[in-house]
Amino acid sequence: MIRTARRLRRTSRRSGVPPKVVALGGGHGLSASLSALRRITGDLTAVVTVADDGGSSGRLREEMGVLPPGDLRKALAALCGDDEWGRTWAQVIQHRFVSKGDLHGHAVGNLLIVALWEQLNDEVAALEWVGRLLGAHGRVLPMSAVPLDLHASVRGHDPEKPDETTTVRGQAMVALTPGDVQEVWLLPADPPAVPEAVQAVLDADWVVLGPGSWFSSVIPHLLVPELADALVNTRARKVLTLNLAPQPGETDGFSPQRHLEVLARHAPKLTIDVVLADEAAVPDRESLAQAAERLCGTVELARMAAPDGPRHDPELLATAYDRIFRMRGRIGPWR
Amino acid sequence: MIRTARRLRRTSRRSGVPPKVVALGGGHGLSASLSALRRITGDLTAVVTVADDGGSSGRLREEMGVLPPGDLRKALAALCGDDEWGRTWAQVIQHRFVSKGDLHGHAVGNLLIVALWEQLNDEVAALEWVGRLLGAHGRVLPMSAVPLDLHASVRGHDPEKPDETTTVRGQAMVALTPGDVQEVWLLPADPPAVPEAVQAVLDADWVVLGPGSWFSSVIPHLLVPELADALVNTRARKVLTLNLAPQPGETDGFSPQRHLEVLARHAPKLTIDVVLADEAAVPDRESLAQAAERLCGTVELARMAAPDGPRHDPELLATAYDRIFRMRGRIGPWR
Repeated sequence: MIRTARRLRRTSRRSGVPPKVVALGGGHGLSASLSALRRITGDLTAVVTVADDGGSSGRLREEMGVLPPGDLRKALAALCGDDEWGRTWAQVIQHRFVSKGDLHGHAVGNLLIVALWEQLNDEVAALEWVGRLLGAHGRVLPMSAVPLDLHASVRGHDPEKPDETTTVRGQAMVALTPGDVQEVWLLPADPPAVPEAVQAVLDADWVVLGPGSWFSSVIPHLLVPELADALVNTRARKVLTLNLAPQPGETDGFSPQRHLEVLARHAPKLTIDVVLADEAAVPDRESLAQAAERLCGTVELARMAAPDGPRHDPELLATAYDRIFRMRGRIGPWR
Repeated sequence: MIRTARRLRRTSRRSGVPPKVVALGGGHGLSASLSALRRITGDLTAVVTVADDGGSSGRLREEMGVLPPGDLRKALAALCGDDEWGRTWAQVIQHRFVSKGDLHGHAVGNLLIVALWEQLNDEVAALEWVGRLLGAHGRVLPMSAVPLDLHASVRGHDPEKPDETTTVRGQAMVALTPGDVQEVWLLPADPPAVPEAVQAVLDADWVVLGPGSWFSSVIPHLLVPELADALVNTRARKVLTLNLAPQPGETDGFSPQRHLEVLARHAPKLTIDVVLADEAAVPDRESLAQAAERLCGTVELARMAAPDGPRHDPELLATAYDRIFRMRGRIGPWR
C-alpha cells in the first residue's frame, strides 16, 4: 500500500503535487472507491448522495429534519487511516446499537454528524469537523444541502403485473424493486448543489463515478443540475467504475453496457474518458467498448475483485486507478 | 488563567513536576472542580460516580445495560481546553437532541461513550479514547465498573407524614426529595472499585472532594469500600470543597458544618486536611472550624462565586486551589 502511494506521488503530472480527485457516489460502492483512492492521492473529495430514506438515516431525517447522514458517514469511515486511530474511529462511527429500545439500529456516526449539524448549523463545516476528528484522508461533501427523495418509474414492480409501469417512491424501495427500473428522478426536482461540491468537480484532475448501486447511488448526482453541468464542463478526466456483478433488485440482469446506456439516458451531454471494469465481469468486451465509445471513452480492464466475494479489493482498485491516472493523464504517454 | 498555571508550575513541590490531583464527584460540582484544576495542573484524574438513573443516562443504562454515562461525559466536557477544538467538542458532546421522537433528550456524548464501551468492551480504555478525541486535559474514570443504585433513608419524604422515615430509591429521586436525608447506601452493597481509580487516589499529591450534590455526587465514593480505604490510606492531602448554597431538596437548610457531619457519618475514618468554603456562604465560622477540626482539618475561606449565580467561578476556584496546594503542600511554609 505504501509502495503504491509512493509510486503515484513520484509520477504525478505536476511534480510533487498529488492529483486532485473527486469521487461521486454513495454507500458501499463509494466506500470502495475512497478506500482505494486515499492510498494514491492526498487530495481527495467525496461528493455523496443525500436521498436515502431507509434505516437509521431515514429515521433521523424524519425525526430531526436533517440530511440523511448514513452515506456521508460511510464515506468518512472509508477515509479513515489504517493506523490505530483511524481503525478505531472507523469502527466507532460505523457501530450500530443493538437493543430492544429506541436506539436500536442507529449508527453512532449518524448521531455524531447530526449533532454537529445542529451545533454548527452548517452541513459542510460540520462534516469538515467530523473529518478532522477522525483524521480522515480527504473531504466529504453532500451533493445537496436539501434532503432529496428518489423516485423511479419501474416496469413490473408488482410481479403479478409484469408489463405495468408504476412510480416507486423512496431510495430504499427503488433499491429493492424486483421490477425493471426505467428512469429515476429527484424530488424536489432541480435541487441546488452544494457549491463546494461543484467547485471540487470543476477543479479536479480526475473525477470518479461508481461503483455502486446504479440508480440509487451513481445516477442521482447527474440529476442535480449544477453538478451535472460541472461534470460536463470540468477539465477533469472522468473514470466510470463498473460493478463486479449486477445488483439483485435494482440492476438484476443488466449487462455492463446497459449500465452505460442507462447512465447516458440520465445525462445525455456527459462524456466519460475511461470505463473501468473487472475483466471477469465483462462477458462481451466488444459491446462494452462500443458503449464506452458512445460516451467518448475507452475501456480499461483489470482484476479488482476481493477473494471473499463480489466486492472491490481496495489494493487492487488502487492499483487500477493508479495506472489509469498515470497512463491516461494529460501529460502521460497515452495522449 | 495562564498566569495562574505558570505560578503553580513555578512553585510545585517537586520542581518542574505538576502536582498529581484526583477530583472525586459527579455532575456540575465535579465539572466546576475540573474546570478549575485543569488550569493549574497537568496531572489530573476525575473519579466519577455511576449511580445516576435519571434522564438520558437512566434510559441508556436501562436500554443498553451499561454504566450511566452522563456524569462521565460532563467531566470530559469540563476537561476540554479553551481553544476552538476543545470548545467545539465540549459543545458537541454536551449537545442534546430535541425532537418529538426517540432521540429526544439524549446527549450525544452519552451515545458516543456507550458506543466506545460496546466496541472496546473496556470502560476505562473507552473513556481514555474519548478523552484523546477531545484533547481532554486529564483522565476520567468511573468509580466502579458496575452500575449502582443509590438508596436513601429519608424523614418526611412524604410531606404529609413529616415524621415518618422511608427508603427512597434511585439517585434521581434522592436528589429531589423534599424530606430530610438521613443516610444513603449503594446497591449492590460493597461494589468493586475500578482499580485505576484506587491507584490514582493512592498515588495522588492532592485529592479534592466536592463541591456537588452532597448525597448523590460527593458521598457515594465513600460507599465504595476500596475507594474509601484508599482515601483513608493515601499519603495525599485532601481538600473538601463546600457548596456555595444548600441544594434545594437534598440538602435544604443544611449548614456548612452539617455537610461535614453528614460526610463523617458515612466515612468515620476519613480525615480531611483542608475544608474550602466561600466566605459569603459561612454564617458561623467558629462552628465550621470546629467541625473541620473533628476531621483533623482546617478551614480555608475564599471568594469563589461567579457573578451570575450560585456557581463556582473556575478562575476564582483555580486561584483558591492553587493557594492551598502551594501553602498547604508538604514542603510549603505552612507546615
